[in-house]
Amino acid sequence: MINNKDIEFISNKLEFWNSLTSLEQKQIINRSQSLPYLKGKSVYGGLDDCRGLIIVKKGQLRTYILSESGKEVTLYRLFKDDICVMSASCALNNMNFDLYIEAEKDSEIILIPTDIYSQINQKNIEVQKFTNSVTLTRFSDVMWIMEQILFMSFDKRLAMFLLEQSSIENSDTIHMTHEDIAKHMGSAREVVSRMLKYFQNEGFVRTERGSIILTNRKKLQSITF
Amino acid sequence: MINNKDIEFISNKLEFWNSLTSLEQKQIINRSQSLPYLKGKSVYGGLDDCRGLIIVKKGQLRTYILSESGKEVTLYRLFKDDICVMSASCALNNMNFDLYIEAEKDSEIILIPTDIYSQINQKNIEVQKFTNSVTLTRFSDVMWIMEQILFMSFDKRLAMFLLEQSSIENSDTIHMTHEDIAKHMGSAREVVSRMLKYFQNEGFVRTERGSIILTNRKKLQSITF
Repeated sequence: MINNKDIEFISNKLEFWNSLTSLEQKQIINRSQSLPYLKGKSVYGGLDDCRGLIIVKKGQLRTYILSESGKEVTLYRLFKDDICVMSASCALNNMNFDLYIEAEKDSEIILIPTDIYSQINQKNIEVQKFTNSVTLTRFSDVMWIMEQILFMSFDKRLAMFLLEQSSIENSDTIHMTHEDIAKHMGSAREVVSRMLKYFQNEGFVRTERGSIILTNRKKLQSITF
Repeated sequence: MINNKDIEFISNKLEFWNSLTSLEQKQIINRSQSLPYLKGKSVYGGLDDCRGLIIVKKGQLRTYILSESGKEVTLYRLFKDDICVMSASCALNNMNFDLYIEAEKDSEIILIPTDIYSQINQKNIEVQKFTNSVTLTRFSDVMWIMEQILFMSFDKRLAMFLLEQSSIENSDTIHMTHEDIAKHMGSAREVVSRMLKYFQNEGFVRTERGSIILTNRKKLQSITF
């Protein structure tokens, strides 16, 4: 059961809300939950963990894939107002890949359980359209990352990553170790350290223990073109 | 306009066929085309080339992405009976990545033009479900390739590629140059040649001008585990 503020929030975010019957709206309201996740906590753990549809109220979630050996690669992030249908995997016909989602900052989400979501998705074409549209947004995100990995040289990728991260942290200082960055980029620490050393020599950044400071944003941006 | 045999074919392949009105069925029949594509010809050329829904009647299509510098990476293949909705990109809300499709063998397809497909997709929930399901199949294909590229060592990937290619060609002899293989795998010719030389030294394959012969399938398979 969610409160009035949350009801208003989700009715604005879910484009299909007004196409639902009042009974369906009530079912969603009664069964949905507002859940807090502390930084670092797992929000969704792959196909077997079919939670439901997630709407981010605040904070930041990271979606990633995981190799057998424990290597992680970040696919995309979910911010306030973003919606995830992948976490209702078992309601989605033919989705057969594992994704993982964790809270990257202290976060709060609204969770609509899979059975309710699946029920309205089966019956209501507006919900289907919405599902399809959100799926294609994530598919596009993944294709973008894939093209980056396959086609872009590492200096360009790293420069883009640093600029993006700086904009997320809203600061010129990025609080991450080389290891952290390597994890996000699906690369190795050595490769990241080598390129950061080059960036430092060129005066683009200054590296300190546990953080990187962007000292010449303009030059960093020029690499990305 | 397609003939009776083609009508029977598509009515079997399109799960939503019986949920269409007879007018909608007639529109599809009247507007669809059966098109031949010789090996090597382009079937779909990215977002600006929004053709429609494709059903493969015979042959083999290759779906790939393309970098600015012309580098290609194969994402998945479409065989007889396979369906592609990505080629109706402009009918799909939020699809914003470029894919390319070419005939890898002499092929024949049925094309349902985008405007007709989009029209029934907007109105009919069974068509939406079908669209969503086909989209997620391709999304899963892409995730599989992505995990291969990110997480799998190159010997494993190459062994799997050779075995898959041999099964597609239905022969122990694969008619491809090292350059061709590199193109398919998003790798460089030198990397492929080096690994093939290693495979040859181990007695897994024998390389000849323009082809690779699998000489020890069992050992090649053992690498892939």
